[in-house]
Amino acid sequence: MSVFEEILENKAIDAWARHFARPRFQVNKPHESDAELVEMGDGSSLLAVTIDTVSEEIAQGLYRDPFTMGWVTVMASLSDLAAVGARPLGLVISVSLEPDREGSFRDGIAEGMAAACRALGVFILGGDTNTARETSLTGCAFGFVPRGEKLMRIGCRPQDAVFLSGGAGRGNALGLRALARMPEEYFPEASYRPAARLKEGELIRKFASSCMDTSDGLLITLDQLVRLNHTGFSITADWGRVLAPDVCQFCGRTGIPRWFMAAGIHGEFELVFTIPPNAVDEFLEAAEKMNFRPIRLGAVVEKPGLELVLPSGERTGIDMASLRNLWAAGDSSLTRLLEEHHAWGKKWRLEP
Amino acid sequence: MSVFEEILENKAIDAWARHFARPRFQVNKPHESDAELVEMGDGSSLLAVTIDTVSEEIAQGLYRDPFTMGWVTVMASLSDLAAVGARPLGLVISVSLEPDREGSFRDGIAEGMAAACRALGVFILGGDTNTARETSLTGCAFGFVPRGEKLMRIGCRPQDAVFLSGGAGRGNALGLRALARMPEEYFPEASYRPAARLKEGELIRKFASSCMDTSDGLLITLDQLVRLNHTGFSITADWGRVLAPDVCQFCGRTGIPRWFMAAGIHGEFELVFTIPPNAVDEFLEAAEKMNFRPIRLGAVVEKPGLELVLPSGERTGIDMASLRNLWAAGDSSLTRLLEEHHAWGKKWRLEP
Repeated sequence: MSVFEEILENKAIDAWARHFARPRFQVNKPHESDAELVEMGDGSSLLAVTIDTVSEEIAQGLYRDPFTMGWVTVMASLSDLAAVGARPLGLVISVSLEPDREGSFRDGIAEGMAAACRALGVFILGGDTNTARETSLTGCAFGFVPRGEKLMRIGCRPQDAVFLSGGAGRGNALGLRALARMPEEYFPEASYRPAARLKEGELIRKFASSCMDTSDGLLITLDQLVRLNHTGFSITADWGRVLAPDVCQFCGRTGIPRWFMAAGIHGEFELVFTIPPNAVDEFLEAAEKMNFRPIRLGAVVEKPGLELVLPSGERTGIDMASLRNLWAAGDSSLTRLLEEHHAWGKKWRLEP
Repeated sequence: MSVFEEILENKAIDAWARHFARPRFQVNKPHESDAELVEMGDGSSLLAVTIDTVSEEIAQGLYRDPFTMGWVTVMASLSDLAAVGARPLGLVISVSLEPDREGSFRDGIAEGMAAACRALGVFILGGDTNTARETSLTGCAFGFVPRGEKLMRIGCRPQDAVFLSGGAGRGNALGLRALARMPEEYFPEASYRPAARLKEGELIRKFASSCMDTSDGLLITLDQLVRLNHTGFSITADWGRVLAPDVCQFCGRTGIPRWFMAAGIHGEFELVFTIPPNAVDEFLEAAEKMNFRPIRLGAVVEKPGLELVLPSGERTGIDMASLRNLWAAGDSSLTRLLEEHHAWGKKWRLEP
């Protein structure tokens, strides 16, 4: 069993992928990039394509407003393009709704999709509609990357700096607030309006050695990157700097440990990326020019795995496999899951 | 109300599309082509993209073998590419399965998808997996069309010849056999293995004035084409020549009128296309060279609507809107639907 195969979710994807032959013109193997990258035969560009379905978050009650459902469907696909540095050409969508849904529900989804597209200057080109027992929304986005600037999850090396495109944790704040049935005002659904980092991705691809979006949460993203790259990351656990301000407020108000917001599986479409040491200054200068101020998380290290640097200065190597498989097993109550999280955090001496 | 808007299914698509701005680089408007066609900026090619979800056919019990589910998901998307004459670059898929499904169910779907890809030399590049209350499979296919040979649903003119790429009716034979719970052997599910007409589409695009696949059944496809083109079609109702041989056998054995197999909504991914009169000979010669023998259905005429030429020589103009909206209403029992079909056919003097 490789360090990669011990994650149940990765195994589930491999169970599908092993049936399918990969063509020679495809640049990436399974797991290696957020979007599929294929040679187009013109020698200068790669086509980037990605597909994402939003349904579990709706079934679990994380999204109750159809506008959120539509917004996230578009952003989830576009974020995969951002993580490979692609310039989007457009999206197609497939929408499945319960037959008894009102027109206002459909219109809310469509308005959320349209607003997300307007926010990023992208277009929905067409789609498919179906009836189903539950709401299921699929977005498929495609775009182009210059061949010489391809950006994937793999490629980072020890000493590279690790960055985060913006404050994380909003996905888990919304998720925990909704699952635990806390009052809406503690973290309103309307405050969850993640924007795919498309513009930033086009800059990042010029400098970065690897990149992945935080759609599955920050720590899981970091864990996936170290597994794929056979390296380690040494990461600051200074949550006040890593998490978005409203996420820290949510934790302050509810008493939920802040590290939970990095550890959960419902993400927010920021980008985690690595920059070789000799390119960091030039990158930060170019980023500043577009008012993009990424958060420096730490560095790539030789020793495999994730190491957190606690505010006390203490270093703790965390075992993410046990945490990730808690969620993948999927048969625990929320109370039990939270207890297991507390126990996990205590084991690795994480501070709230 | 235009002749186009009286169809409930078209209105449902428009209810979505009206929320979305269309970009200037998109060639087609809603309904105008089986796949979305966009300028790629290189001046020589169009990118064709399409998305299709297979779920209703599974929920209704039309497909029980996971292999069929996977096969059709791939073919449905590729057939949309065939109908615009595109050469495919690949597919991405999104699969949602019930959490308690066995691995063999997933493997069956994957094998059906892989076999369909192998049959046409196409590749699945990646995808997304989810859990859901019912099986839902989405395919998104993309490919290229030379800019000067774009093929859409619109463009046919009176006097053009109307062709069908191969015998129709298998979709409706399977559908009716399954819905009416007739013995499997009357029309085995394994005999429903439609193959997208990709190779033929690349030839057709060089000659044809319009094209659309029969994924929604033959008569509905013809009706959609006449509405979009503001023309009429005069079509032979010689069912022995228009339907596939095993479909005619199914009708002979069960006593179901053969025209039902053209009138139902579950299609089989043949192509309906029109060829200008002065190009017919050259087209047929080129088709013969690749052993492709399309069925001549009739001709485009000035007078709007669908006219069937019965074997007796009698001509009958049929009203497809009433037939299509029977299905779209969707709240009738099968028995009632079949009665309504019989009454509809009698009204237009259709022969079994």
